[in-house]
Amino acid sequence: MGQLSRETINLILDTAESFKEVSSRDIKKVPTLRGKSVINFFYEPSTRTRTSFEVAAKRLSADTVSLSVSTSSMVKGETLIDTAKNLQAMNPDIIVIRHSSTGAPHLIARHVRAGIVNAGDGINEHPSQALLDLFTIREKKGRIDGLKIAIIGDISHSRVARSDIIGFRKMGAEVTISGPPTMIPSRAETLGVTVTCDPRDAVRDKDVIIVLRIQLERQGKSLFPSLREYASYFGINNDVLAYAPKDAIIMHPGPINRGVELSSEVADGPRSMILDQVANGVAVRMAILYLLIGGLRVGNVD
Amino acid sequence: MGQLSRETINLILDTAESFKEVSSRDIKKVPTLRGKSVINFFYEPSTRTRTSFEVAAKRLSADTVSLSVSTSSMVKGETLIDTAKNLQAMNPDIIVIRHSSTGAPHLIARHVRAGIVNAGDGINEHPSQALLDLFTIREKKGRIDGLKIAIIGDISHSRVARSDIIGFRKMGAEVTISGPPTMIPSRAETLGVTVTCDPRDAVRDKDVIIVLRIQLERQGKSLFPSLREYASYFGINNDVLAYAPKDAIIMHPGPINRGVELSSEVADGPRSMILDQVANGVAVRMAILYLLIGGLRVGNVD
Amino acid sequence: MGQLSRETINLILDTAESFKEVSSRDIKKVPTLRGKSVINFFYEPSTRTRTSFEVAAKRLSADTVSLSVSTSSMVKGETLIDTAKNLQAMNPDIIVIRHSSTGAPHLIARHVRAGIVNAGDGINEHPSQALLDLFTIREKKGRIDGLKIAIIGDISHSRVARSDIIGFRKMGAEVTISGPPTMIPSRAETLGVTVTCDPRDAVRDKDVIIVLRIQLERQGKSLFPSLREYASYFGINNDVLAYAPKDAIIMHPGPINRGVELSSEVADGPRSMILDQVANGVAVRMAILYLLIGGLRVGNVD
Repeated sequence: MGQLSRETINLILDTAESFKEVSSRDIKKVPTLRGKSVINFFYEPSTRTRTSFEVAAKRLSADTVSLSVSTSSMVKGETLIDTAKNLQAMNPDIIVIRHSSTGAPHLIARHVRAGIVNAGDGINEHPSQALLDLFTIREKKGRIDGLKIAIIGDISHSRVARSDIIGFRKMGAEVTISGPPTMIPSRAETLGVTVTCDPRDAVRDKDVIIVLRIQLERQGKSLFPSLREYASYFGINNDVLAYAPKDAIIMHPGPINRGVELSSEVADGPRSMILDQVANGVAVRMAILYLLIGGLRVGNVD
Repeated sequence: MGQLSRETINLILDTAESFKEVSSRDIKKVPTLRGKSVINFFYEPSTRTRTSFEVAAKRLSADTVSLSVSTSSMVKGETLIDTAKNLQAMNPDIIVIRHSSTGAPHLIARHVRAGIVNAGDGINEHPSQALLDLFTIREKKGRIDGLKIAIIGDISHSRVARSDIIGFRKMGAEVTISGPPTMIPSRAETLGVTVTCDPRDAVRDKDVIIVLRIQLERQGKSLFPSLREYASYFGINNDVLAYAPKDAIIMHPGPINRGVELSSEVADGPRSMILDQVANGVAVRMAILYLLIGGLRVGNVD
Repeated sequence: MGQLSRETINLILDTAESFKEVSSRDIKKVPTLRGKSVINFFYEPSTRTRTSFEVAAKRLSADTVSLSVSTSSMVKGETLIDTAKNLQAMNPDIIVIRHSSTGAPHLIARHVRAGIVNAGDGINEHPSQALLDLFTIREKKGRIDGLKIAIIGDISHSRVARSDIIGFRKMGAEVTISGPPTMIPSRAETLGVTVTCDPRDAVRDKDVIIVLRIQLERQGKSLFPSLREYASYFGINNDVLAYAPKDAIIMHPGPINRGVELSSEVADGPRSMILDQVANGVAVRMAILYLLIGGLRVGNVD
C-alpha cells in the first residue's frame, strides 16, 4: 500500500466494482485472461487468500499453478531469488507470493519480469486485504474520505493493520488504533493515527470498526496474561459496541477467534461485514490480476 | 444415502450412465459446467476420491480448487462453519468435503448456499462410494432389486458399509454382513440385514460380495489379535469363494490390503470389479455434480 | 534415455523447438491437447519439475490433476501398482511420475494403458532433464554430435548425470566425468566416458560444462569431509573456468547450492545457461506430452 498512489487505488476499486458481478453470474467466467499463467506461491498456510486468488484467476480464465512450501524446492535449500528466477524462466504473467519475511515480494520483483503480487509478507504488509477492506468500506459507506475508522487488536504484529492504516490515511480517512500497550507500535504517532488503550473510547463516533485476529501462531505468549483476559479487556462484544454509532460497520480479516477478539453476537450480527469482505476479496483480486497483466506497474521500492 | 429417495438414486445412476462414455472419448470433456466453481475440501488423506471428483469436475469443464487440511486455516483454529461460510462468500457452486467428524457435511449444508457433497464423514457415510457401487452392480447384474449382497469385514468402522447397506436396502437388495464379532455393530438387526460370522456362510448364494478394507489407520489394535489371524479367518480367497455362486462378482472400495482382507488371486481375478468401480466413480461423480448444480436438492437433515 | 533411439530424441527436440514460441506469445496456450487428462504424481518434493510439467500441460490446454505423496493413499499402504491401476481406471492420457525407487515408472508402464513419463526415479534416470539439456546444448551450440561435454559433481548419486551420459553418448558427444573418487561410479569406464578427478582437467577443451547439485538430502554424510572442502576442491568458480575454452557454456539442473558446487559469479555469469534450461524445460515437456498422446511409444523394458 505504501507504493500505491491514490489514483491507482481508485482505479483498482473501480475495476473491482466492474468485476464483482461476474461471481454472481450463472457462468462465473470471462475470457479476459485466457492464456495467461498465474503462479500462486505460498510459504505460509492459507485458505482464504490462496483460494481467493485462485478463484479470481480462474474466473478470468487464466491458468493457475499453486505451490506450497512443503512441496517445493525450499526444502532443498534454494535461495528465494533463485526459486523466483526459475519460476520466471517458465514465463508466468504473475506470481502471487506469501512469505514469512518482510520484503520478500519486493526482493523478487527486482529480479523477475512477471508481475508480483504481495499476498502477505511477514509482519509488513497485506495489500490485497487492505484493498478489499477499502472496497468494502466504499461499498457500504459510499466513500472513504472523511470517515472515522478504528482498528482494534494486535496492531504491532498485524500486516493487515499496517496496510489498512496506510491505505485509509492515503484515501483521507481518520484512523484510531487501540489495543493493549504491548501491542501498540512504539512510534504509533508517526503513522498519523490516534491511539487509545480503551476500546470503548476507540469505537466512539466511528463509521468503521476493524477488529484484528489475535495471531496466536505469530507472537510470543507474553504480550498479555491470558486469552480470557484479552477477551475481557479488548474483546469486541455488544457491550463495547454500545459506545459506537448505530450505523458503524464491523470488519475482521479472518479467520476469527470467536470469543477472543470478537464475540459471536457481533461476528454474526447485522453490522458485521466480514463475509462481504471475503466476497469482495475475489473481485478485488480479479482487478489486481487484470490490471497487473494489463501493464499497471507501481513504483519499485529501493 | 439416508437422505436419498429411490427415485433420486435412479436419477443419479441414469445420469451417470449417460456421462460414462465421456471418459472414453478422444476429447474427454463436455462444456456442461463451464463457468461453475467446485471446491474440494479434504480434511483426510485421499487419492482416489479426491482425484475422482477433480477429474469428474474437469471433464464437465468446471473450475476446481483443491484444499487440504495441511494448507488450510484449520491450523489457525477457525471453526468448520466459519471456514465454510468463508468459502461460500467466494460463491462456489459446489463444495465437496471429506471430514473426520460425523455430520460435518450436513452441518455445513445448513449454513451455505452452495451444494454440499459428502465425500466421507468420519465413520458415518460415504455416499458417492455407495452410488458407484450401486452403479457397478446395476451395470454388471442388470438390476439391484432382489439381489443378494454380502458385505464382509469391519462393518462397525466402515462408512462405506453404512452407506452401502442403506443404499442396497433402499433399492430392494437383501444384505448379509459378516466379520469378527468385534467388528459387527451391536444393533445390526435394526439395519435390516442378516448377520453371520462365517464368511463361507456369508458368500453362499450371493450375487455380489463386497470386501471391506481393514482400516488400520482408523481403529484400535485390539479388535483382532493379528493381521495374519484376520486373513486366515476372514480374508477372502479362492477357498472362501468356492462357496459362492460362479457368477458372483467381487467388489472392494480400495485401497486394498493385499493378503489381508483380500487375496491377490481374487483381487486380480475375473470376478473382480474393483477397477470398474473406480472407472464408474468418475461417471457417478459427474452425475452428482451435474444434478446438484442443476438444482437437485435432497431433504435437509435436522 | 536408455529406451530412446537417436531418431526419437531428434523428434522430441524438433517438436520442442516448434512449441518453444508458445510460451512467449501474448496468449500462451494452444488447443492441441484439449480434453486430455494429465495426472502429475510426485512421491518426492519438487518445484521446478512438477511446475514445468503442469505449465506445459496447461499451455497445451490439457486438464491436470496433481497428487503428492502426503495427500495420497500411500499413507494407507496401497502398493504402487494398485495406485497406478486405480489412476488408470479414471482414464488419464498421461501419468507423470516421480518416485524414490529405481524403475517405478517402468513398473507402472507395464500395468496401465496411459502414457507414463518418468520425472525422476530414485538414482536411476531423469530423462526429461536430459532432453532439456540436449535441447539447450543444441540451441546454443548448433549441434550435439562431436561436442565435448564435462559433467562434474556427485556422478554416482545423480539420476541427471546418468540420463545425461546416456543421452549425450547416444547423440555423438564425448563425455568426461569428474568428482571426488567417492562420487564416481566404480565401473565408470563401462559408461563410455573419460574420468578425471581434477575439475581443471575436466573442463579443458570442453564445449559444455554441466555442474551437478550436491544432493545433501540424498546421500550419506561420509562422501566428503565437509561442504567447505567440497567447494574448495570441486566447486566450479572463475579460477577453474580459466582452464576452459572462452565459449564453453555452463549448465546446472538446479536447485543450486551457491558457494558449494557452483560459485555465484559463474551461476550468474554470461556463460551460464541455467535459466535457459528451465525455460527450455517447458517446451521439451510440451513436446513429450504431445508426442506421447499422439501415440509415440518407446520400447518396453523387460
